Amino acid sequence: MRRMKTMEGASCNPLGISLRASGGEFSGPGRRVSAPERGLLKSMLAALGNPSVALVTWGGETITGKAGEPARIKVHLRDPGALLRLALDPQFQFGELYSSGRLQVEGDLTELIEAINKAQGIRKGWACRLLGLVHAPRSNLLGQSTANIHHHYDLGNAFYRLWLDDQLLYTCAYFPEPSIGLEQAQVAKMDHVCRKLRLQPGERVVEAGCGWGALALHMAREYGARVRAYNISREQVAYARERARAEGLDDRVEYVEDDYRAIRGEYDAFVSVGMLEHVGRRHYKELGAVIDRCLGARGRGFIHAIGTDYSAPLNPWIERRIFPGAYPPTLREMMEVFEPAGLSVLDVENLRLHYARTLEHWLARYEAAADRVESMFGPLFLRAWHLYLCGSLAAFRGGHLQLFQVLFQRNGDNAIPWTRAYLYDKTEVPWNAPKS
Amino acid sequence: MRRMKTMEGASCNPLGISLRASGGEFSGPGRRVSAPERGLLKSMLAALGNPSVALVTWGGETITGKAGEPARIKVHLRDPGALLRLALDPQFQFGELYSSGRLQVEGDLTELIEAINKAQGIRKGWACRLLGLVHAPRSNLLGQSTANIHHHYDLGNAFYRLWLDDQLLYTCAYFPEPSIGLEQAQVAKMDHVCRKLRLQPGERVVEAGCGWGALALHMAREYGARVRAYNISREQVAYARERARAEGLDDRVEYVEDDYRAIRGEYDAFVSVGMLEHVGRRHYKELGAVIDRCLGARGRGFIHAIGTDYSAPLNPWIERRIFPGAYPPTLREMMEVFEPAGLSVLDVENLRLHYARTLEHWLARYEAAADRVESMFGPLFLRAWHLYLCGSLAAFRGGHLQLFQVLFQRNGDNAIPWTRAYLYDKTEVPWNAPKS
Repeated sequence: MRRMKTMEGASCNPLGISLRASGGEFSGPGRRVSAPERGLLKSMLAALGNPSVALVTWGGETITGKAGEPARIKVHLRDPGALLRLALDPQFQFGELYSSGRLQVEGDLTELIEAINKAQGIRKGWACRLLGLVHAPRSNLLGQSTANIHHHYDLGNAFYRLWLDDQLLYTCAYFPEPSIGLEQAQVAKMDHVCRKLRLQPGERVVEAGCGWGALALHMAREYGARVRAYNISREQVAYARERARAEGLDDRVEYVEDDYRAIRGEYDAFVSVGMLEHVGRRHYKELGAVIDRCLGARGRGFIHAIGTDYSAPLNPWIERRIFPGAYPPTLREMMEVFEPAGLSVLDVENLRLHYARTLEHWLARYEAAADRVESMFGPLFLRAWHLYLCGSLAAFRGGHLQLFQVLFQRNGDNAIPWTRAYLYDKTEVPWNAPKS
Repeated sequence: MRRMKTMEGASCNPLGISLRASGGEFSGPGRRVSAPERGLLKSMLAALGNPSVALVTWGGETITGKAGEPARIKVHLRDPGALLRLALDPQFQFGELYSSGRLQVEGDLTELIEAINKAQGIRKGWACRLLGLVHAPRSNLLGQSTANIHHHYDLGNAFYRLWLDDQLLYTCAYFPEPSIGLEQAQVAKMDHVCRKLRLQPGERVVEAGCGWGALALHMAREYGARVRAYNISREQVAYARERARAEGLDDRVEYVEDDYRAIRGEYDAFVSVGMLEHVGRRHYKELGAVIDRCLGARGRGFIHAIGTDYSAPLNPWIERRIFPGAYPPTLREMMEVFEPAGLSVLDVENLRLHYARTLEHWLARYEAAADRVESMFGPLFLRAWHLYLCGSLAAFRGGHLQLFQVLFQRNGDNAIPWTRAYLYDKTEVPWNAPKS
């Protein structure tokens, strides 16, 4: 029987992750699996389409699927209860067990999740939908939204600084070339957004959900816009205000600690990057009404959000432990924002692979900072967020998640771009030719 | 009182149209309007928001709205029955009365329709929706589709040759620059489609609804594709086959006189330009299943169709007299094709103003060929189709209709373009640098 002190030596993670098991050393061979347990383990592998994955039991036995080839990834189940939980509610319990260390992965976690996702197919069966009801997303009524957002975004700026880019953009970057760095790609994303909106000096912009404030500053600094940016995360707003002051942009950028539903005033452009995921589908019409109310006659708008190709709830573990209240809509569902509000969709771009690339960067930085994360929040948190990043990467790579950028304008307004060629005129690309 | 022999002298149509009234000369002053009739005329103008339009009665009286300025457009109602019909069912009767000559327009017809559309607003009231039920679109079950398509497309190639481009493309063109000609813009459109699909030599393409076959020939000639193109219009298919033979492309392009539901075989690309409008919303899932069935593992797809920003039936007169069974979907509704079929939307482009430009070209050619159209089909047809073209132009200009190009691929396929920059690389644009 094989013993492992940690996962380190055995890991074939290409990014070189070194995540320790929670309980220190394994406690040696436990009892052998019973016949029903063996049947369960076998049928779990079969349900996954017998991928190149082996299950290693608490007693040290290795169970493989029908495929004869040696398993590239080993999943260690540390006690019989872990097996039972996994069998009953895999979508939720995989995350719980991985976080607590009762399930350990020897090999590439992202690759494992990709294999599982692939085996499940794009559309999940009825059993998963049933579990989806059990794990229904948290509500996003006014007070609850604040609690939901606090759960995720107020973990402390120091934490996010460990693995995001230097401007703390926590949304999909745009890589004009796949090889450019994360910092460059986040600047390119901000330019892509501003150019889609055709921002002009002096224009008034409202931003719904501004994160740490980088886009608002970029619009003011690079495009001369006057920006009012809303966010319900106190820590993010405090950080953003400080940065605006430091850059001397606080006369042109105002950060408001409030919900998007509190937006008042009239603007030339509405922009929201990475907020729709937190709005909740029941509130799309309300968001549309807010946009309608705040856009001037010539107003344009832009929404950038994670979505899906098929209507399905977010993985329940991610929704419960990482993103309470989050829901990635289909494009069809997203239209519920625009259609009742008399808005016309001009352009939709799917940047799914750009989010996968973004996540590769985040994951590499996160793994490099694993020791610091663990010292800040402990091993359970370290593993939970590692799983969240790997799971997200697998989802964007495999097409379970999409990234939609939607550009819109008031219906019937003819002051719209004639073609999209202006977005790709290299002579104008700021990320390519930085301003002096 | 003013008498008019024809509309000619009075017309301020910028395209110089000369459409004669059906009944020859006016028959001189008839009876004066009654008080209820006057009230009806006034309230019709008020309902339109009192635009710069005057109503001229059968008795020669001119009724204007509250606006004091002289009316730029005059609508002549030639008998009391015409007023009654117009008041009861304006959406349908305007077309009927205009076609029969019982309602005549002095001034720019497109401008009149734009004013009416604007006054009605983007969303029509409940009364129009009720009338929408009365005028529900024709079904698109297998046999009925053929009848519906025959109604419109089998009017004779000679008719369409009078006002379409030289390759007979009866769909929205693409104008990289607004000033280029219609012939150039239709070639640019075909290239835009082929480039979005990234067509490679030797690839197999299936086209659903191929019109007179120009796109299929273009894909074979310019991109080396092997194309099978379906169409249920007998006359169009006969024309397309003859053209393929004449060009020596009949070994690479096969035209099939059949419905899209009869598509068999496996293809690298699915393309459909201007057919979804005729599919009928109830059959979107069926169309998605056809696409799913015929696309190979690496298959891409493209649908180009007229749509709307809000769910509403097509104008009942257009649906009954011009396009039986037609329905322009919202983007949300279009997703009913893709979502159940496991297809991922990569790119949506709204080319509304390109359709307006296309219609300006068609309308100018149609008006220049008015005498020939009248000699072919008579004055009622001449006016009906003139109204249809003006009404379509007004609808695209005003945002009542949209043109959506949707590019899609199998969900989870990562062989997708990294960015859309390749579509705008001028060095590669064939319309700009014709092949030798």
